Amino acid sequence: MTSRPDAGGREKPRVVIVGGGFGGLEAARALAKADAEVVLFDRHNHHLFQPLLYQIATAALSPANIAAPIRKILAKQENCDVIMSEVTEVDLESRTVTVTDQRYAYDYLVLAAGARTNYFGNDAWSEVAPGLKNISEAIEVRSRFLLAFEQAEIETDEEARRAALTFVIVGAGPTGVELAGAMAEISRQTLRADFRRIDTSTVRVILIDAVDRVLSTFTPELSDRAQRDLEQLGVEVVLSTKVVDVQPGLLTVETPEGEERIEAANVFWAAGVRGVRLGGTLGVELDRGGRVIVGDDLTIPGRADVFVVGDLAHRIDPHTEELVPGVAQGAIQMGRFAGETIASEVRALSRGSLAPERGVFAYRDKGSMATIGRNRAIADIHGLRFGGFLAFLAWAFIHVLSLIGFRRRLMVMLEWIWSYLTLDRGVRLITGEDQVPKPVKPPPDTRLLGRDT
Amino acid sequence: MTSRPDAGGREKPRVVIVGGGFGGLEAARALAKADAEVVLFDRHNHHLFQPLLYQIATAALSPANIAAPIRKILAKQENCDVIMSEVTEVDLESRTVTVTDQRYAYDYLVLAAGARTNYFGNDAWSEVAPGLKNISEAIEVRSRFLLAFEQAEIETDEEARRAALTFVIVGAGPTGVELAGAMAEISRQTLRADFRRIDTSTVRVILIDAVDRVLSTFTPELSDRAQRDLEQLGVEVVLSTKVVDVQPGLLTVETPEGEERIEAANVFWAAGVRGVRLGGTLGVELDRGGRVIVGDDLTIPGRADVFVVGDLAHRIDPHTEELVPGVAQGAIQMGRFAGETIASEVRALSRGSLAPERGVFAYRDKGSMATIGRNRAIADIHGLRFGGFLAFLAWAFIHVLSLIGFRRRLMVMLEWIWSYLTLDRGVRLITGEDQVPKPVKPPPDTRLLGRDT
Repeated sequence: MTSRPDAGGREKPRVVIVGGGFGGLEAARALAKADAEVVLFDRHNHHLFQPLLYQIATAALSPANIAAPIRKILAKQENCDVIMSEVTEVDLESRTVTVTDQRYAYDYLVLAAGARTNYFGNDAWSEVAPGLKNISEAIEVRSRFLLAFEQAEIETDEEARRAALTFVIVGAGPTGVELAGAMAEISRQTLRADFRRIDTSTVRVILIDAVDRVLSTFTPELSDRAQRDLEQLGVEVVLSTKVVDVQPGLLTVETPEGEERIEAANVFWAAGVRGVRLGGTLGVELDRGGRVIVGDDLTIPGRADVFVVGDLAHRIDPHTEELVPGVAQGAIQMGRFAGETIASEVRALSRGSLAPERGVFAYRDKGSMATIGRNRAIADIHGLRFGGFLAFLAWAFIHVLSLIGFRRRLMVMLEWIWSYLTLDRGVRLITGEDQVPKPVKPPPDTRLLGRDT
Repeated sequence: MTSRPDAGGREKPRVVIVGGGFGGLEAARALAKADAEVVLFDRHNHHLFQPLLYQIATAALSPANIAAPIRKILAKQENCDVIMSEVTEVDLESRTVTVTDQRYAYDYLVLAAGARTNYFGNDAWSEVAPGLKNISEAIEVRSRFLLAFEQAEIETDEEARRAALTFVIVGAGPTGVELAGAMAEISRQTLRADFRRIDTSTVRVILIDAVDRVLSTFTPELSDRAQRDLEQLGVEVVLSTKVVDVQPGLLTVETPEGEERIEAANVFWAAGVRGVRLGGTLGVELDRGGRVIVGDDLTIPGRADVFVVGDLAHRIDPHTEELVPGVAQGAIQMGRFAGETIASEVRALSRGSLAPERGVFAYRDKGSMATIGRNRAIADIHGLRFGGFLAFLAWAFIHVLSLIGFRRRLMVMLEWIWSYLTLDRGVRLITGEDQVPKPVKPPPDTRLLGRDT
């Protein structure tokens, strides 16, 4: 190996972790007892429980319910520094990362910087069709969703009103399915009694995917079940259909029967992710999704000191011969592996002994779940496949337990019980500037004036 | 009276209410049984419990804890329409309001559009020193407050670090006192263990006011007590001092001893409010604070169909001969008076009888309270004046009970109990774009690189 790390000129080796998501946090924790200087960088001050981000976008939870300050999580780990800053580049030769135009040296590097929304080369679509990767985006989706009803309520033009009440979700993976199901439920149940002029049960929620079934990482039987659930909630599931253009108010899709246009004022993008730009600065091979291809020990070729974990890593599992999935468990297990590998080498080095042989990372599938709506979910746990209320309960239980800290668990549980019983959503807030709706077509004066003039 | 209203050309008289704060909401509720068409306009989709807004700014509560969708609050009131839109002008002659460039007729108008931050003619200061009037501003204050610590943590220049950790709050009314107390507590307690490089107990929180005591609407004895409480928390209370200039990083003040400069990266503005611009479009007399001067029945001169209530109204109470204060109770009582007055006239008109004589609005002071911090508050309830833990408990109790809905009361109570026991703040989130701190003075390379090069 060309660059098996040593302690540089410092007393203790320095481990730089980029990203405080599941992977980075787990790597930091695995180094808790290591005699090393650990520094974790993140652009945000908080760790985000991404699997529940769609619940912010659909007004069920507040951001604080699923986000926690990284430095508080790691406050008791004395060997770990948390720095809110953006790492923009990695230089493998000088073994430094660039942070706000300055270079910062590492002995070990763990890249856990995650993924961004994938518009497949059409980044301009992001203005019209926001993705769902961080709190700001989730609040933007929430505002647009709720604003659409306010807009429709003041619209006198029937066509404009219909467009305002048409929601298209692109991508039928877990996020897209969860968004579509929740939006249909909110329209038909939560908002029903609150509007005077519009009938919220006329809302169209359209879920589009290029492949021929929803939740395609599950078995075909579970996909079918999820699709039936969605359709019972009123979602229009449109499969084998590719989005070819996104313009304000207008979506163009390619169906097996040819090109079609959908007039929709609201489009949300859940069609996939790609690795963040930082991965490209390594100068090593990336896959088509911008992920960094890593070896058995999750390091990049020829650089035993540089680990890539989580959504940014492309790792083919030796057992299944499939890509380790971009889910929380994938990131957690990879982060832990990287952290433990580094910890054992640091230990060996400090004793003056040889670094132990590197292990081989293998993903342990703990099962997967997706929720569609109230009492509706699917689960596949070690081949035990089920849906309905039991899956919904299991999903809720596991997600509550996975949150950080007793306070968040309690609050989320209470919010969920409350919503379950009342069909209400606790966070129906439209925030941000200049969010006042204006009718596309102004009503005739007499009508608006309300006088027989 | 020149314009005692009738039912216009319509079947039912239309009551237009502008603003869904305490005053507007109460006016709408008072009209629940009236045989009228009630329309409530608001720029936001939510009613905000403003007395607790500072708790969003100081990371104690989430926006959803204190805000509720207006149309949900009024969903069961069938004679009431809620429209999210901005009313920009009133035309008294044609009896219309302008909403998104269209005119909308009223038979009765209740203006409850509230107040905005008062920079006393220096609106440019708002960029440097945000106020605290809505959720977006509260989140902005929260982000700036939390970001300052992140900035200080990466600052190597001692002067820049000191400026980053200096917080100035202008205005020692309830909001300013609450902000200052909370910020001092968070610095000294909540954040203490989470930072490695900075000592958060060195934070300076400076509370400035032009008058000679804090909370000047209370008795001098209670002001003294509040000031002692603030100083015990570490707040520097600077009185009889006027802000004469606000620049990024630098505040210029005029003390009794002359002009002074304070280097502070963070300034928050709580120095008072003035009526919103809409009041000016009435063409009637305003007071110096931009409030509309109203008569005994809360209407404007010569227009018995136009009521102004809440923070936008200037009303001298007949008993105390003082201005009805700009607090929740003032707005609630005025809104109820306007709503009830209209309801009784509508009832008389529909029976074909003469409208009853208008009443005279008188404010009923239910007492006032302000909180300074944990176990620290002051209260003055019908001359019963007290402070300390009992006042703190009474304050918490009354504020929880005043929230809308059981769910909000439960959640806020739990959040407060949790914070009380742990000294933690549940919502330490920095959100928004481009919020990554950059050091003012980049550290020398060797130090940043961490190598002996």
